[in-house]
Amino acid sequence: MSYGYVGKILRVNLSIGSIDVEKFDENFYRKYLGGRALALYFLLKELKPGVNPFSPENKLIFATGVATGIPLPGMNRYAAVSKSPLTNTFGESYAGGFFGPELKFAGFDAIIIEGKAEKPVYLWIHNGEIEIRKATHIWGMKIKETTETIRREVKNPKARVAAIGPAGEKLVRFASILHDMKYANGRCGLGAVMGSKNLKAIAVVGSHKLRFADKEKIVKLAKWASKAIKDMPGPHSRWMYGTGAVLLPLNELGLLPTRNFLDGEFEHAEDISGERMAETILLGRKGCYSCGIMCKRIVKGKYPYETDPDYGGPEYETLAAFGSLCGVGDLNAISYANMLCNAYGLDTISTGVTIAFAMECYENKILTKEDFGGLEPKFGNADAMVKLVEMIAKREGIGDILAEGVMRASRIIGRNAERFAMHVKGKEIPMHEPRGKKSLALAYATSPSGADHMQNAHDTLFERNVEKILPLGILKPLSSMDLGPEKVRMFMYLSMWWSLFDCLGVCKFAVMPHPAAVFSISQLRDIVKAVTGWEVTIWELLKVGERAINMARCFNVREGFNKSDDTLPERFFQPLRSGAMRDEKIAGEEFEKALKLFYEMMGWDSETGVPKKAKLHELDIGWAVNFLEKSNNKT
Amino acid sequence: MSYGYVGKILRVNLSIGSIDVEKFDENFYRKYLGGRALALYFLLKELKPGVNPFSPENKLIFATGVATGIPLPGMNRYAAVSKSPLTNTFGESYAGGFFGPELKFAGFDAIIIEGKAEKPVYLWIHNGEIEIRKATHIWGMKIKETTETIRREVKNPKARVAAIGPAGEKLVRFASILHDMKYANGRCGLGAVMGSKNLKAIAVVGSHKLRFADKEKIVKLAKWASKAIKDMPGPHSRWMYGTGAVLLPLNELGLLPTRNFLDGEFEHAEDISGERMAETILLGRKGCYSCGIMCKRIVKGKYPYETDPDYGGPEYETLAAFGSLCGVGDLNAISYANMLCNAYGLDTISTGVTIAFAMECYENKILTKEDFGGLEPKFGNADAMVKLVEMIAKREGIGDILAEGVMRASRIIGRNAERFAMHVKGKEIPMHEPRGKKSLALAYATSPSGADHMQNAHDTLFERNVEKILPLGILKPLSSMDLGPEKVRMFMYLSMWWSLFDCLGVCKFAVMPHPAAVFSISQLRDIVKAVTGWEVTIWELLKVGERAINMARCFNVREGFNKSDDTLPERFFQPLRSGAMRDEKIAGEEFEKALKLFYEMMGWDSETGVPKKAKLHELDIGWAVNFLEKSNNKT
Repeated sequence: MSYGYVGKILRVNLSIGSIDVEKFDENFYRKYLGGRALALYFLLKELKPGVNPFSPENKLIFATGVATGIPLPGMNRYAAVSKSPLTNTFGESYAGGFFGPELKFAGFDAIIIEGKAEKPVYLWIHNGEIEIRKATHIWGMKIKETTETIRREVKNPKARVAAIGPAGEKLVRFASILHDMKYANGRCGLGAVMGSKNLKAIAVVGSHKLRFADKEKIVKLAKWASKAIKDMPGPHSRWMYGTGAVLLPLNELGLLPTRNFLDGEFEHAEDISGERMAETILLGRKGCYSCGIMCKRIVKGKYPYETDPDYGGPEYETLAAFGSLCGVGDLNAISYANMLCNAYGLDTISTGVTIAFAMECYENKILTKEDFGGLEPKFGNADAMVKLVEMIAKREGIGDILAEGVMRASRIIGRNAERFAMHVKGKEIPMHEPRGKKSLALAYATSPSGADHMQNAHDTLFERNVEKILPLGILKPLSSMDLGPEKVRMFMYLSMWWSLFDCLGVCKFAVMPHPAAVFSISQLRDIVKAVTGWEVTIWELLKVGERAINMARCFNVREGFNKSDDTLPERFFQPLRSGAMRDEKIAGEEFEKALKLFYEMMGWDSETGVPKKAKLHELDIGWAVNFLEKSNNKT
Repeated sequence: MSYGYVGKILRVNLSIGSIDVEKFDENFYRKYLGGRALALYFLLKELKPGVNPFSPENKLIFATGVATGIPLPGMNRYAAVSKSPLTNTFGESYAGGFFGPELKFAGFDAIIIEGKAEKPVYLWIHNGEIEIRKATHIWGMKIKETTETIRREVKNPKARVAAIGPAGEKLVRFASILHDMKYANGRCGLGAVMGSKNLKAIAVVGSHKLRFADKEKIVKLAKWASKAIKDMPGPHSRWMYGTGAVLLPLNELGLLPTRNFLDGEFEHAEDISGERMAETILLGRKGCYSCGIMCKRIVKGKYPYETDPDYGGPEYETLAAFGSLCGVGDLNAISYANMLCNAYGLDTISTGVTIAFAMECYENKILTKEDFGGLEPKFGNADAMVKLVEMIAKREGIGDILAEGVMRASRIIGRNAERFAMHVKGKEIPMHEPRGKKSLALAYATSPSGADHMQNAHDTLFERNVEKILPLGILKPLSSMDLGPEKVRMFMYLSMWWSLFDCLGVCKFAVMPHPAAVFSISQLRDIVKAVTGWEVTIWELLKVGERAINMARCFNVREGFNKSDDTLPERFFQPLRSGAMRDEKIAGEEFEKALKLFYEMMGWDSETGVPKKAKLHELDIGWAVNFLEKSNNKT
């Protein structure tokens, strides 16, 4: 009897049109939980090192976790995982919404996509039945048309459709996957992997009920959570203003990425804030499956940037990436850019950073008006910004180069443009400034999929608020500016904790240490126990998180990545130009010391960053030792 | 407001007669919990490396943990800790009974004893009051007379008196400390440290009530535990026959140490079993503070070995050490030897092993009848065995050499007697056979205080019974004979778990994974939370256990111990002579491989066994890095 998971994994080979269902035992689920760790299990065992991410040999995995689909706030996420065409590393991206729970209701914990269809297809999964359907007629459609067409064809207006848009088809290296038109697996270009397989979409419907070992406890927790969310102090809760609520505080701290990370504050911050959105274009709020937090925005942009509310509204990342980072203070333009990204299937962070890069190239005369086909993309030019989104999605003009991401684009452009390319391992930097949140320097440098802000809780959260992470054994607050051994330790523990979320399928907004979280650390343990019936401990759970981190590290080691790739764009070692953190920078020596200490704390070789065999054995993944041995890297 | 701990530590300097009370904050107790870790905190910070254990510069610490004194089964233990005169390493020994709880009721979590009194003294601690009293008139007395005399003097028949006997006074290197005449801090010669300080005893009485954060929960758990103990299947519960219940099963498995570890089975096993004891000399059972498990034996040995029931009865370790290990099948003689040990203050394990060593020397003509003053201590000679106990206690004749322990005695005797000296780092091997419980090889070799059976749960327990340790993430049973990476991992996790018990003050019989345990792993977490009010996790708790292991390792590194000391007596690398495990041995290469893997898993240098600085930082004991640097050892 399985609780919390279905016990079945779907494997679809698009080259030969085969469909298989594989079963795994309880220990498999207890050891990997799902999501990140589960997907890595298959990628490590099955993927040939050095494979081209766009080749049929690459695999794309959609994986829920044992918490996905619990009727509690934040328990609805799933992973999309593959070798990333943006970074050539382990690629991962998580989405909430409804697709993950629906996949489980349809009878599967995960889908492994292999090969490449001869012509465009989509998958139709309904209650254990799987069809590979032709999609030639849908190819080229934007996300909304795609979704609506498929829903009509499967005769189910409630089908959850995870689709790619024209950007994914055209292999834009940061193309996204969207379901229900607004829930994105945004990062790492996994939409392009889908495109490379001629897979336009996956539609899912299910009515299978998930079994929980202690249903009563879940009901009790749901009631408790519902009240807890209602009791959150209204105007102070960030969910009133969505994730955009952090924009003004960050600006005040001097930590709002502005003009391609040259500045730490933005003169038009108020105009692009969550508060301003609520006063102007906000139509409503939207939650994910069974979640009352309602962090999503529904907006209606105004002339000349009218937007379709079905595509949702901009998150903080998007507000900053198209706003302050491009010097744009026009909320309507930002919302329009957001809609274009969701319609064409583009990651808003990478798109925004790529455009900011292009703007800085233009301002420094590395790219000219001619290069931009007549556009004059100075920082602050909202029209140019919006136009560039579309050019990237369609690979038109300069957009064809920018669609490669800042790392590749800067190399193509040459003329020292690399100094403006804000990325780690090819993935564009998200909207968090490591010069004032020092552990982010480690997070960006060591994240297995390139610069990522969801690997580790940001250290500003704990300067005053350490009681939330006491149960992890972090007993005193540490300054945001600290990058000493105690901070490295906090970083390590919180990385394991957040990695666990990505295995379980749990939202980082719903569980401590997020300041507006509903559930405590101990409650997450109780939830996993109630769902699965396993007498788990936080020890066991954190070790799953650590296991996943090490599996991801093994993946990258096998692909030839090493310590020299765990670095930051040069700009972060230079002083911030403006704002409350003006002149702050990452000290190179301090960073290097922290990085080595982190490696050693993790049980990785301090010189190479390669996991030691003993660490893999300690994490009960001795089988992965062989993969390290097969690579050319020192272990 | 402190819950679970008092917040006060008593410091007594016997050289100058000073008495100080030191206070520590909540984070100190949360980080170290008590016992092992708390004592190591002071030893590391205050003890000069290389100090002679018998010098006034050595310190002796009695430390309770936050769980000591909870009115629940098994929550009553305390640590006696010092630099050991037997091993020159970190020395530790734990006792249950009533002294630990009483110390807290008297207002102190721990006592640090420093210096050396000019003349014999004892300490009288009653409700926060402390007196250093003269003990010249008590010096030389056995434990019972000592206890009774002091109780009369302090006018309190219920005073808990932890005392040494003549053996401690005479600095027998394995002298013990006993309270209430039967609860022993047996191992590591801490009674001799007490003797070297001219400290005859510590008497304690207190009426301070411990505060618990959630008293209701404790009451609930107490009721639950009381029923759980009652419901244990009677004849199958080992407590019916005490720890002696394991003797026959071990004999059947071929794992009963016999004739100084030459044999694995004993022809008179039934005669010295827990079952036989129950049929013959057993008067009754006795528990520790607030514990219904009642594992202690009260016996009355018969002519010519009449014993005093006030001294309790032999445990399994004692039955085997004086019984099978010496080839003695006379339960009365064993009980008499046990009584002598408790009267003179001797560790029964070390005493038995030392006598078995002497017997093997005699049988091999390395020592003669003349050397033994006319005794003929062949294996099986019960009279000689009993006589030798007394000679050791009084340092009479050959007893003066044997009182040094087998390591030193074998060196004094010479003539290759070292091959019969069963010890690690000078501490005599307890009654568990590593050739058939392979992880014990690692436990004996790496225990910070020399060979010890309480560092790690024995792997026979989990061959069939793995569900008890699932919450630690050990998902499948492993054979007792396995010493591969999975076993090393299990060993590491269980070492951390049991190290935690020694910090908390918790009995290893009361909490999983002991087969007859009352509380589960999760319940221990609930208990710590209810007592302290801290929202602890098993993660946080295990890290305290790991912290203590590393602090102990630092202590030994500083004292000059290194990998070459983490070994086993040569005999264990040779085949067992008899029994179901006949011909089994520890394979040297396998052991070496497992040892190095364990080091690396622990974050220790795989060549030297020295903890890496990163590990100390990860455990939030960065302050200990300095101590490693000051030593001459490579870090």
